[in-house]
Parts: sequence; C-alpha cells; structure tokens
Amino acid sequence: MIPPLQWNDEAFRVDLLDQTRLPVEERWIPIETPEQMAEAIRKLRVRGAPAIGIAAAYGVVLALRDPGAGPDAVQQALEQLRQTRPTAVNLFGALQRMEAVLKAYWQADRETLKAQLLAEARAIEAEDREAGRRLGAYGLELLKDGMRVLTHCHTGGVATSGYGTALAPFILGKERGVRLEAWVDETRPLLQGSRITAWELLKAGVPATLITDSMAAHVMQQGWVDAVIVGADRIAANGDVANKIGTYGLAVLARAHNIPFYVSAPVSTIDFETPSGQAIVIEERDPREITHGFGRQTAPDGIRVYNPAFDVTPAALITAIITDRGILRPPYPEALAALRAQLEAEISTPSTT
Amino acid sequence: MIPPLQWNDEAFRVDLLDQTRLPVEERWIPIETPEQMAEAIRKLRVRGAPAIGIAAAYGVVLALRDPGAGPDAVQQALEQLRQTRPTAVNLFGALQRMEAVLKAYWQADRETLKAQLLAEARAIEAEDREAGRRLGAYGLELLKDGMRVLTHCHTGGVATSGYGTALAPFILGKERGVRLEAWVDETRPLLQGSRITAWELLKAGVPATLITDSMAAHVMQQGWVDAVIVGADRIAANGDVANKIGTYGLAVLARAHNIPFYVSAPVSTIDFETPSGQAIVIEERDPREITHGFGRQTAPDGIRVYNPAFDVTPAALITAIITDRGILRPPYPEALAALRAQLEAEISTPSTT
Repeated sequence: MIPPLQWNDEAFRVDLLDQTRLPVEERWIPIETPEQMAEAIRKLRVRGAPAIGIAAAYGVVLALRDPGAGPDAVQQALEQLRQTRPTAVNLFGALQRMEAVLKAYWQADRETLKAQLLAEARAIEAEDREAGRRLGAYGLELLKDGMRVLTHCHTGGVATSGYGTALAPFILGKERGVRLEAWVDETRPLLQGSRITAWELLKAGVPATLITDSMAAHVMQQGWVDAVIVGADRIAANGDVANKIGTYGLAVLARAHNIPFYVSAPVSTIDFETPSGQAIVIEERDPREITHGFGRQTAPDGIRVYNPAFDVTPAALITAIITDRGILRPPYPEALAALRAQLEAEISTPSTT
Repeated sequence: MIPPLQWNDEAFRVDLLDQTRLPVEERWIPIETPEQMAEAIRKLRVRGAPAIGIAAAYGVVLALRDPGAGPDAVQQALEQLRQTRPTAVNLFGALQRMEAVLKAYWQADRETLKAQLLAEARAIEAEDREAGRRLGAYGLELLKDGMRVLTHCHTGGVATSGYGTALAPFILGKERGVRLEAWVDETRPLLQGSRITAWELLKAGVPATLITDSMAAHVMQQGWVDAVIVGADRIAANGDVANKIGTYGLAVLARAHNIPFYVSAPVSTIDFETPSGQAIVIEERDPREITHGFGRQTAPDGIRVYNPAFDVTPAALITAIITDRGILRPPYPEALAALRAQLEAEISTPSTT
C-alpha cells in the first residue's frame, strides 16, 4: 500500500511523496507549513481527488506548528488551501470538515485545538483508506487467485490514501495472499499507467506487465486476460460510466473476447442527478498533450488534434460495478436506485454508533 | 503526392527527403555518390521497403557520376548498397534488376550504360508508383466523397514512391477531387501516425485529425468514422493479415460499430505459403520503445514490458482486401487462390506488350 503522504508525529510534519518525480525517482519531501502544502498541491506534487483532500486537511493542522500560532492562523490556512485547486470537490469537502472543527474549538486551548484538528485529518484519511479497503475486498469477490487482470490509467494508492480504486484488489490481494497479475495500459496521452500505476504495482510487489493501449486487444486475443478493471470519473444513474479516454474501447474489446469488465469506484463517484452518459459533457484538453507529450515534438505543426479526456462506457458493457458499499449488477438503474434510497435513509436516520 | 526522393537530372543527383527530421523539418538532402546513398539508407533517412529499393537503384546510377568511372564502379556500388539493410527484400530485388542491366551493357560505352541504368531505376520507381496509383483507384471504389476514414501507422508516400498503400486513396482522391477526411491514430510506440502520416496528409492538403490510439473507439461511438483502412505487413493464404500492433483492435471495434474495415496492400505482400495468421511469428521489440519513447523515461526501472510489433487480424473481420490487382472479397481462401493462379499464369506466359 503506497500512501501519498505520511503524518510524522514526532517532527509534527507531513512527509509527502513528490508525484511529479515518478516514476524515475521516489522522493519524499517534508512539508512543515500550510504554505508549503498549498504549493505542493498547486504544483501537482500530490494529485488525485481524495489525496488532495487529505493533504489539505493535514495542511490545516500545520498552521499550529508555530508555537505562537492560534485559531487565526488556522483560519488563514483554510483560505489559502481552498484556493489551490478551484475545481477539486474533495478539497472543499475536507476543508469544510476542518473548518467545522476550528469553529467548535475556537475558544479551546491551543493543544486541544491542535489535537482535534489532527484527529479530524486522521479521520478523513482513515475513512478514505477504509473505503479503499472495502473496494478491494469487494473486488476480491470477483477477482480470484491467479487471474490476469488488465487495467487502464491510474487508480492507485497515491491518488487516494493507499489502496486506490481499481488498484485496490491488487494491493489488498497482495496483503491477503491472493495472487493477481496486472496488465497495465500506458494510457496516452498523459501516461498515468506507465508513470504511476506501473510504479505502484512494482513497489507493491504485484506482477505487472506494461503495454501500449493499442496492445490490449492483442493480449486479449491471445487468451492472456481474465478480467478488466477500471476506475470511474462519474457514474450516471443508469450505470453509464465516464472514465479516462480508452476505457470504452477496452469495454468493447472485453465483450468481444468474453472477458468480464468491472468498474471500481466509491459511491461518491455516482451522480444520481445525471440520468445517462449522454448527459455527460466530454472535456477536451490541450492538443499539445498529444503533439508535444514528453519534451519532444512528435507531430507536425498545424495538424488538427482531437483530445477528449474521457469517454463514456454504456452500462450494457459493464459486468459489475464494485463500490465501497457492495457490488452492483445489472439492471443498473434499479441497483443504483436501491443504493440511493439506502444512502438517503442513512442520512435522514443517523447511526448512533 | 510526396515521394521519398526526386531524381535531379540536371545535377545528376538524388534529392532525398530526410525522414529522420520529420515531422519538425522537411529537409531534402543532395545525394551524389553511392556511398552517400548507402549511408542515408543505413541511417534510416529513407525508410519503407519500396522506398529503400528505389533509393538503392538510383544509388547504383550515381556510380557513373564521376566521369572516370566505369562498370567496375557500378559493380562496387551494388555490393556496397546490398549491405545496408540485410533483411530488406525490396532492396535485393531492385539491386538484382540493376545488376542484370550492368551485365547486359558491361561492354557498351559509358553513356549507354549510364542511360540504361537510369532507365531501369526510373522503371522500378514508375512501377511502384503505378502499383500505388492502382491501390488508390481500387480504394476509391470503396471510399466515397465525404467519407471520414480512420487509418493506423504509416502507409504513405515517403515509404513508397509517392502514393503509399493505405494512404493511396486519400492522395489519389485529392488529385481527383474526391474529398476524404482522415482520422490518424498516432500509433504507439513509434508514433509513425503522428510523425509521418499526419505530416504527409497535411502536406497533401487532406483534412486530417490526429488522435491517440485509445481514442479510436470513442470517435467510432460518436458516429464520426465511415470506414477504417490499414496497410499490411503480410497477408496469409486464408486472408488473415499481420500489420502494425493496434490493427486487430481497430478491426474488432469497427465490427462492433458496423464500420467497414479495409486492408490495402500490393500483391507482393501476400504470402501464399503461409496458410493462416496462426503461422505468423510476432516479432517482439525493445522495451525501451515503450519506456523511453519520447526522449524521456516514462516508466519505472524494472517494470516488465511486452512490446509486440505486429498483431494478426483474422480474415473474418476484414470487409475487403484492396490490392493493385483488384479488390478481394470473402471468402478469402478462394479469392486468394484465384489471384495466385492468375499471377502464376502470367509468369509462365509472359505478356508480349
């Protein structure tokens, strides 16, 4: 399990994995102030929505590292961290929880406030890790010992608090002695597969083989793939899944080769207000990601480029959706509606435990 | 039409397009001696099997540029050029033809020998261009005005004598006013699509849009692709096609979206002695093409890599095989057997024209 950061209690600081150095160098940088954490988030040294939220939460705690600092410094850190990645939902969620603690303990003594903020940051991290562990455990109900499983993009530990989403079964499987082998798509244009997924699996000791995206069909044809598992950026109410570009093609290929196709994502990824994938607008990104990908120009000046960041996989191609609340099976509209009702019932009837 | 080289009669030299500079720079280098041509072939400044043969043929002619040179110098040039790319079949074929001319005119005067060698090199080039033109013309029986056609890898003019194989309909279509639009797969790992195909289509004025290989499924899903056309490295007697890795996946995706899938290749690509694709051994290439492809390391040290150069598309997924001798349709075993019989009859009964 590779977390994106580690709280160092003795030094009262965060040791943060600098993801911009991967896969060539594993460099942990000490973060001692909210400013340093804000800078690390802005520079993408920590990335992945859950990881950003966790990093920001600890960043708030660091406001009290200075012995002279009090609640005002914490308030200032909240403002500063909020401005690092304006569209990151998990960031705002985490900072909202930290702000609630600040308000509740504003009048308390400094040590109590510090302890409460640290406890909240740890809770945010632990909850995310538990969600990842559950995703892994449910995933292992489908992925069995000895299976060769193809994955796409990066859905691993350093984007979350250690287990990841689609990588969770591999990592938890390693802990439990379930031997899974991975085929890793490099995932053009940004190569999250070769840069980060391959690195995490290698670190975790999971046997992994890197291929280009265009090789997935060939390895399926050879009979070398027993399942495909991917993450999700958004799941619509009918079970359509938006995920990294290339996912849809894998789903079509899996179906053509009778290979089960699984999506693994926490329930927070489900957007019950989006009726189907048709309602999802596909973000287009900078053409230079394709033409100037890694420090060298690889396409002629003036060529037209289409660079969609995501595609939509219709629910009909998905064998099962693995969530931290259990495994969903077709028909997805019904399965998702039932899950929604369950989640809403929990909100209106808070558990007493 | 972009030829890989141009014979400059006035200067008695070859102007060669330096393909290693593409797509950033279009640089034509003057080649005045067989040594310079051998060096250009060795350094891959000219690449693509037919183009190498044509370049070598002109390289032989250059032996007589020196006013003091005679048949011995030509013989020496033949030996030198033969050693440039030991596995290139077209190279040996072209040099064999040049050697036959040398032997027939060894006793002739220098100017006659020079004229005959030049005529033979021009014939080799013209025959290849004519084959390309025919491929284009047959291709245009299937690809109609306004169609959006997806292609993979590089199959264009600079690898042949101007029209290419799978690109021939685009180039000939441009000449004839048939408007085709191209989707160009970048074609990992070596990016022949983005580096050369995109450049050629841009130069030829064919509307083209570059995508990563992983985006092909998405553009098909959107209804933006009317046909797929690819080249071939080898066609087996049953119609199975070995071609650049990624081709098989495109064929599966095309079938799933009811899009016709065409292969365009000269009859010299057909290997009647190979019964089916199962008999074709897939070459594996250097892992560094994937891990260090862009001039920068993009995967961790120690990761296992699988890098097949080709895949095999079963005949059942191919709508038609376009050759310079006509369009083949399923069932391919019968169509190919008939073509073989026709080709063999022509060899045993030489045409008198």
